Amino acid sequence: MNENKNQNAFGMIGLGTMGSNLLQNIADHGYSCAGYDNNTKTVQKLNDLKNENIHGFSDLKQFTDSLKSPKVVMMLVPAGEIVDSVIKDLLTVLDKGDIIIDGGNSHFTDTERRYLELEKQGYHFVGMGVSGGEEGARRGPSMMPGGDQEAYEVLKPILEKIAAHVNGEPTVAFMGERSAGHFVKMVHNGIEYAIMQLISETYEIMKNGLGMKNDEIQKVYKKWNEGRLKSYLLEITADIFTYKNEGEKEFLLDSIRDQAKAKGTGKWTSQAAMDLHLPTPIIDIAVSMRDLSSLKELRVEASKIYLDSTEMDYKTNNEQYCTQLEEAFYFAMVSAYAQGMHLLYQANVEFKYNLNLDTIAKIWRGGCIIRSEFLEDIYAAYNKNPELTHLLLDASVAKDLSSSIPAIRKVVSDAALHGISTPAFSASLSYFDDFRNENMPTNLIQAQRDYFGSHTYELKAKEGVFHTKWMMENIKE
Amino acid sequence: MNENKNQNAFGMIGLGTMGSNLLQNIADHGYSCAGYDNNTKTVQKLNDLKNENIHGFSDLKQFTDSLKSPKVVMMLVPAGEIVDSVIKDLLTVLDKGDIIIDGGNSHFTDTERRYLELEKQGYHFVGMGVSGGEEGARRGPSMMPGGDQEAYEVLKPILEKIAAHVNGEPTVAFMGERSAGHFVKMVHNGIEYAIMQLISETYEIMKNGLGMKNDEIQKVYKKWNEGRLKSYLLEITADIFTYKNEGEKEFLLDSIRDQAKAKGTGKWTSQAAMDLHLPTPIIDIAVSMRDLSSLKELRVEASKIYLDSTEMDYKTNNEQYCTQLEEAFYFAMVSAYAQGMHLLYQANVEFKYNLNLDTIAKIWRGGCIIRSEFLEDIYAAYNKNPELTHLLLDASVAKDLSSSIPAIRKVVSDAALHGISTPAFSASLSYFDDFRNENMPTNLIQAQRDYFGSHTYELKAKEGVFHTKWMMENIKE
Repeated sequence: MNENKNQNAFGMIGLGTMGSNLLQNIADHGYSCAGYDNNTKTVQKLNDLKNENIHGFSDLKQFTDSLKSPKVVMMLVPAGEIVDSVIKDLLTVLDKGDIIIDGGNSHFTDTERRYLELEKQGYHFVGMGVSGGEEGARRGPSMMPGGDQEAYEVLKPILEKIAAHVNGEPTVAFMGERSAGHFVKMVHNGIEYAIMQLISETYEIMKNGLGMKNDEIQKVYKKWNEGRLKSYLLEITADIFTYKNEGEKEFLLDSIRDQAKAKGTGKWTSQAAMDLHLPTPIIDIAVSMRDLSSLKELRVEASKIYLDSTEMDYKTNNEQYCTQLEEAFYFAMVSAYAQGMHLLYQANVEFKYNLNLDTIAKIWRGGCIIRSEFLEDIYAAYNKNPELTHLLLDASVAKDLSSSIPAIRKVVSDAALHGISTPAFSASLSYFDDFRNENMPTNLIQAQRDYFGSHTYELKAKEGVFHTKWMMENIKE
Repeated sequence: MNENKNQNAFGMIGLGTMGSNLLQNIADHGYSCAGYDNNTKTVQKLNDLKNENIHGFSDLKQFTDSLKSPKVVMMLVPAGEIVDSVIKDLLTVLDKGDIIIDGGNSHFTDTERRYLELEKQGYHFVGMGVSGGEEGARRGPSMMPGGDQEAYEVLKPILEKIAAHVNGEPTVAFMGERSAGHFVKMVHNGIEYAIMQLISETYEIMKNGLGMKNDEIQKVYKKWNEGRLKSYLLEITADIFTYKNEGEKEFLLDSIRDQAKAKGTGKWTSQAAMDLHLPTPIIDIAVSMRDLSSLKELRVEASKIYLDSTEMDYKTNNEQYCTQLEEAFYFAMVSAYAQGMHLLYQANVEFKYNLNLDTIAKIWRGGCIIRSEFLEDIYAAYNKNPELTHLLLDASVAKDLSSSIPAIRKVVSDAALHGISTPAFSASLSYFDDFRNENMPTNLIQAQRDYFGSHTYELKAKEGVFHTKWMMENIKE
């Protein structure tokens, strides 16, 4: 059993599909590696691959003994207490100076705590977001490691090989201090929620507003994916609209229940954004629409009560309309990315992560779920100006966005009139109209707060905080 | 000093305006009471009132010694660690069986923890939300006590006297178990954020869409406040639109900065709702629009870049349009209350608070910031059917709401076309259109999740969870 002692360059704990696929990816690049799982059947499955570079273990000590020093152990286990418990076990078999990677979807505050605890004890801890799903893990994911730059330098050669590559550059880079990696991955997922919600709204418009059939809708997504909207999410959407089970006449999509689930990373993004006082309304609405979708019984009941006589059919030239919809989607998608990047900007200020927003955009261009043509523009914007506060302030982005304003106005307006729900499209537009509004109507909110709660207000022309006794005698009577 | 030992019926810690006003309110009803503050000047200010029923102390032991048993001590101190520190001090001078009330805006999870800790130690703890601002505290607030029914029975005679009264009934009642009081108060504030945001959007429409002047806008709010929209918030809004500082030509409102602040209770509501998977998009957007408003520099910069040529002026019959706006506001306001009530419903299921939604609506009818004519309808709906899941499913509410659908569609649509930001109005409409949609487009989101992450999906026609290998051979090529 000791034959491969100190031989393996990389160890993986948790041998689900993701873990197994990542190991195979590492092995493909010539690295000898080890996998551990407390489920012996899962270990057997790994060994059954008969990959000479991959060695499965069901004994933790043997597993870590098989690793070269400094030992590199990555966990791909469910987020939460299990991570803490695996770390506790690992500390009994690792040496100081070894490297523990959490590659799961841990909440960044957990990563922050673990990083600080392990640093104190002399271990290197790397919180690393991994995106790309099972296929990405196997062929080349996008990876967002953060925590300990010294440890990252040890991992770098392996990670750069197994990552996806765009224009010859790997989709992995050191993100920043402490919990930066998991924070960035969380925001990635928040943007993912937003874009998926936006796509679902285009589906609703085409299906119920324009009365289009699945194969017509498929053609639209396919076309969009050939232009500036090119993205992994549109690509798989077009695929989905072609899929029928063998022997079935119906598209599979039509038989799927509309209750969308969530693993929580979108919610975390919205909650973290609110804690940072940073508005991300498109992400927020994407989270709450999934929640609404799961309240199926309620919706069925409501659908019987609210027999709105609104004429849903747009009665228009569908081809023309879809061109407009494409522009509107562009507008809303840009806004979704912009809100996510803005959140990263603010988190960087608040948490001193030492993030580089251009690097983040760069590694998101491939391997991950939100990869898209537009990420090239984001990369260019932050590369040109690393201090850019908000993506919508970039001149080139502003130019493209401005030309799609009439389209988003028309699409949101039509949907409202025709009873088609487009909460994320609407949020992208109203966010924009307040964002570019030098004078929001929130002076009234400050006046109200001062009126009922003496919360004071500020003045445009004079520094300081002020309070008014608003109830005048003549009103009191 | 011992002359009033065991004489006082009620003790207050924290003698800011709220605390002092509440004590005066209690004293008005013939109760002898005591106030404590560690700031001797603040105590002096209380004693300077020369109210024979009010006794100020700067010594905690003398303060609690002055109270009748079981001693009742209410804290009105800033939420957070100070509350814990005051409780710690109190435990050195109180006896088991005494009652501690936290009347501040504590987070419900803190109240939950404190309740359980104090219960273990033999003390009664009541987390009580108090709404109505300074004026309410003095003349009659709305109070939301929760935690310990036995303790509430002791407090009840005093609280029912000092509360506001609607149709002869006090605006206070026992809310439910443990942290129920602070949860209910939090949701109250969430609804308050939503309605304030909605009012600010009507202001924006009238000011920039319809080109109306402050005095014209004031008349509209005043008129609305005479009909079914009658509410405290519209009443004070109408007041605000009349206010000029002495000798000033300009309305004060116009010189107030548009950066809206927040104490955090709105954010807590959204975050708690997300944790409960309960959609409250109007509250969420109200929170994030305050955050956006405070990013003033960014907005000024953006306003110079996005010189949208959209024609903001609606060029319409303003009087007619304001009638439509009134209906749209009704629609959105109902939705805001409905989302808040729905959150209470779900919290009750999850946290086993033993809430009565009709009681909550009943005590909100007076004294608090969100008091309104419409709360009579809410009260009636839950009184008729205590099991009502969602306010919009009540037949009477549905009837009134349905008639205002054309108005909300028109208002949201016009705003989108004219570059006026109405995020909360839009959210109320899209929430509604999905709420009454038996088949949301979220089947696509489930298909996407299964495609890239093997997250599985459910079928309409068959129980179970399913997974598809979506990438067919022909697509893979």
